[in-house]
Amino acid sequence: MSDTHSLDALIAALRRLPGVGQKSASRMAYHLLQNDREGAQLLSRALHEASASMRHCERCHTFTQQAVCATCLDPSRDLSRLCVVETPADQAALERTAAYKGLYFVLLGRISPLDGIGPQDIGIDLLFKRACDGVVQEVILATNFTAEGEATAHVVSEGLKSRGLKVTRLARGVPVGSELEYVDLGTIAHALADRR
Amino acid sequence: MSDTHSLDALIAALRRLPGVGQKSASRMAYHLLQNDREGAQLLSRALHEASASMRHCERCHTFTQQAVCATCLDPSRDLSRLCVVETPADQAALERTAAYKGLYFVLLGRISPLDGIGPQDIGIDLLFKRACDGVVQEVILATNFTAEGEATAHVVSEGLKSRGLKVTRLARGVPVGSELEYVDLGTIAHALADRR
Ligand SMILES: [Zn+2]
Ligand SMILES: [Zn+2]
Repeated sequence: MSDTHSLDALIAALRRLPGVGQKSASRMAYHLLQNDREGAQLLSRALHEASASMRHCERCHTFTQQAVCATCLDPSRDLSRLCVVETPADQAALERTAAYKGLYFVLLGRISPLDGIGPQDIGIDLLFKRACDGVVQEVILATNFTAEGEATAHVVSEGLKSRGLKVTRLARGVPVGSELEYVDLGTIAHALADRR
Repeated sequence: MSDTHSLDALIAALRRLPGVGQKSASRMAYHLLQNDREGAQLLSRALHEASASMRHCERCHTFTQQAVCATCLDPSRDLSRLCVVETPADQAALERTAAYKGLYFVLLGRISPLDGIGPQDIGIDLLFKRACDGVVQEVILATNFTAEGEATAHVVSEGLKSRGLKVTRLARGVPVGSELEYVDLGTIAHALADRR
């Protein structure tokens, strides 16, 4: 066995992180061993604890340590509206606006055929079941306005409409504070079409 | 305590990796929990084992699980030459050329005042002690040809020359296989000055 096998194993394990190749993985490993062994131990424990304790909320699919997450259990939320987002970070962004009081469904991803991620991988059956509880009146699609986010919104929308649900999408338009001159043409075209 | 505290702790711990901000850390955490729990456990163990077992070679400062690394113990190496590199990856690149049979000293970094990394942080005293063993005849500086690598080479060179050692630097020049038209001017100027 080589005299650096545990370093080699660390570099190989770091490469499993998304976006991390051989070079970044080496740089991360050298940095932790050279300058931040406390960080290495901290990360080791955090990985172990998170992967042992985090599961999916039975209602909204987000990560939680309980059977049902705190948001789904919050009695002050409006049960008639369900907002579909890609990630907990997107949900947090919507929460910061304080403009939405309904509930969420967190896909934890988006449909991406190139990455082998299909509808089943983002909990779409759970979403359909959740949205058809008889209480939800409107499903608001808040997936990203990227090609994959739009494709995901399309698939989700078709499935929900075929089940008789009202489906809306976040408005596309000119960002607040921006000058038209610097806004891309597709955005201006959408803002024109969706004018109110 | 929040129902996602172990996820929050994982994201915070991932941010200690170099080059990883809030957004990448979230993406890494979601990916591991959603698609690769086995990878999370593997990385957890690898971090623990590497930070518990890896130490510095007493002679060349590189990472090893022994007191002295395999390269320093290799009886076929030429003891009279010592090559100074920034990282084990740089040492591996030199080894792949099969053009060098001497020993190494691995700084595990480079002097970088902006990052608070000074000569003491890259084991410079150990290098001076190592190079002055009475056997080493020549120290070859193979730090990178970046601003920081050059600054490091300069500091190391001054220290070694003041101790009476012969110090050389890898030649700068036109990369093999490249067309002059596409080579940057500084490189051509160095290749002209160092012509042979
Ligand atoms: Zn929930
Ligand atoms: Zn060594």
